[in-house]
Amino acid sequence: MNEWSDRVRDIESFKVMELLKRAKQLDAQGHNVVHMEAGEPDFATAAPIAEAGVAAIQNGHTQYTPSGGIPELRQLIAEHYANTYGLDISPERVLVTAGASGALLMVFSLLANPGQTFMMADPGYPCNRQFLRLVEARGQLVPVTAEDNFQLTPELIEQHWQPNTAGILLASPANPTGSVVHRDDMELISQTVKTLGGHRVVDELYHGLTYGCNAPSVLEVDADAFVLNSFSKYFGMTGWRLGWTVVPENAVADMEKLAQNLFISPSTIAQHAALAAFKPETLSILEQRRHAFKERRDVLVEGLRNLGFVIPLMPEGAFYVYADASRFTDDTFSFCWDLLEEEHVAVTPG
Amino acid sequence: MNEWSDRVRDIESFKVMELLKRAKQLDAQGHNVVHMEAGEPDFATAAPIAEAGVAAIQNGHTQYTPSGGIPELRQLIAEHYANTYGLDISPERVLVTAGASGALLMVFSLLANPGQTFMMADPGYPCNRQFLRLVEARGQLVPVTAEDNFQLTPELIEQHWQPNTAGILLASPANPTGSVVHRDDMELISQTVKTLGGHRVVDELYHGLTYGCNAPSVLEVDADAFVLNSFSKYFGMTGWRLGWTVVPENAVADMEKLAQNLFISPSTIAQHAALAAFKPETLSILEQRRHAFKERRDVLVEGLRNLGFVIPLMPEGAFYVYADASRFTDDTFSFCWDLLEEEHVAVTPG
Repeated sequence: MNEWSDRVRDIESFKVMELLKRAKQLDAQGHNVVHMEAGEPDFATAAPIAEAGVAAIQNGHTQYTPSGGIPELRQLIAEHYANTYGLDISPERVLVTAGASGALLMVFSLLANPGQTFMMADPGYPCNRQFLRLVEARGQLVPVTAEDNFQLTPELIEQHWQPNTAGILLASPANPTGSVVHRDDMELISQTVKTLGGHRVVDELYHGLTYGCNAPSVLEVDADAFVLNSFSKYFGMTGWRLGWTVVPENAVADMEKLAQNLFISPSTIAQHAALAAFKPETLSILEQRRHAFKERRDVLVEGLRNLGFVIPLMPEGAFYVYADASRFTDDTFSFCWDLLEEEHVAVTPG
Repeated sequence: MNEWSDRVRDIESFKVMELLKRAKQLDAQGHNVVHMEAGEPDFATAAPIAEAGVAAIQNGHTQYTPSGGIPELRQLIAEHYANTYGLDISPERVLVTAGASGALLMVFSLLANPGQTFMMADPGYPCNRQFLRLVEARGQLVPVTAEDNFQLTPELIEQHWQPNTAGILLASPANPTGSVVHRDDMELISQTVKTLGGHRVVDELYHGLTYGCNAPSVLEVDADAFVLNSFSKYFGMTGWRLGWTVVPENAVADMEKLAQNLFISPSTIAQHAALAAFKPETLSILEQRRHAFKERRDVLVEGLRNLGFVIPLMPEGAFYVYADASRFTDDTFSFCWDLLEEEHVAVTPG
């Protein structure tokens, strides 16, 4: 009776959430913890979005919505693809989800049979492989280095492809390295995977948060790819739990079916709040925040390098610095815990 | 490339969400649709809860929370078990989830290995089996009738138990029949499944919505059962997407691990709003609504019986009427669509 499923034994804890729990305990004890552990902006949600959320509650928008999201929001997201990438995406192809986590669950449920794998770069967002494990598929981790721009390359993909590989998961800008896959590389990668007969899933959660370049959407070069995105990062809506996915036309009906069964619908309040996310006054606040992130990156990377941390590539996007601490420790997990307990600086092991 | 996973082929659409979509289209065209299709109260969220949600946004509670929920809410839910059932439940055993849907996903991920089954009554909530299919397990549907009180009985459980049966899912009050498992029966069922070495999962989503009786929590008779519950039904918070699960002490760490990976955290705004759910002024509003549901049940059951629908058991809980339409049709799906298109009355096929 006390034995749980095999999958639960395989799934590891999400270390940053453990660390965050302890960091918040130290906060509560009155310590002034420097928070650099979690993947969320320290800013509260921008005022126009917050106000739209308040109005939604006051107007009684508190019941279920269609499973794929309210039509107005799907429309706005589709327009965002036209405005930002010059892409003509039909609103039906956009499904609003319970965070990008909800999108990951649905996309891998749709694409991965038991025993199949999705190839992904290591380092990467640690939960990706756990969604695959959940549905009895597996993450196929390919170690990448600064020489590969910390990304899967056509060569790596061909070299590691197996008969049971169902596709790849790319992240651009990447968590935690901040590296961006630029358009020519995206096209080559996409073409390589297509030729191998695999699905292309691209995590575009950090779009909007780039410094000195734009990250292309995979949809610019590959109409049948699956895109994962979120209102959490650029739009600063972490706690609202809202994301979206763009899927090929012929996947829409099956994705809606999954959304109906697994989620009923995404948060109604969050959806109505997000209607304000693309307004000019909101975007102007978000641009100011992006500049603040850039300044922090510049200060932090220089400071860490001066201290002896190795950062081979300047992060082009997201809000992470992936620093090599091997000069100081060969156990980054203990290193991070000691830093938290002794110096009240919260960072996450790599 | 156009082929999706085997599981997606097996998973059926959640019919009520299809019907709801069409009903909302008719609403938008100006028709006055009578909505009896979806499992949600027609009342907007009670004012004290809505006000707490507004305050949460205004106070900047918009970031991630611990994966199992904010400690204050876990504490309040634990107190609810003391006040309502006289049970001493430690707050650590309570995990706040993204709706009861989130709880279902985590509980079945924890308990079901591929190829195993959970036994459940048919008719029942149609998504239950799909969560099992997702993780390569299966729902084992046992047809039940009014003579069984529309519930699994010890006899049915023993008769249908298979070597690969991992446990049972009970729902009390049940969706869609409104039947309640009373304490003696609950004890016998629980004992039967324990003896067979199976897990007990009990859907208590409609607790609070009973008419003339109280539904016991399985935890009154079985300390190691898993409870699923929600702020959607009695507390009227459907669109906020918030639920909870109570799990045995030795499952807490693994359930938190699943919550971290699959959801990061439940909606922060919804959690802060739910802090107002157990206040006396809220409960007094919810009691008034419960009385309204009771009156509607009485009117509706009598009216339907007079029209020739067969309703063998008066629903003791929830807010559904499960009516036998065989006098009118042998295709309830078409019957419901015709009723919607021609009479603008939205009901769900059984």
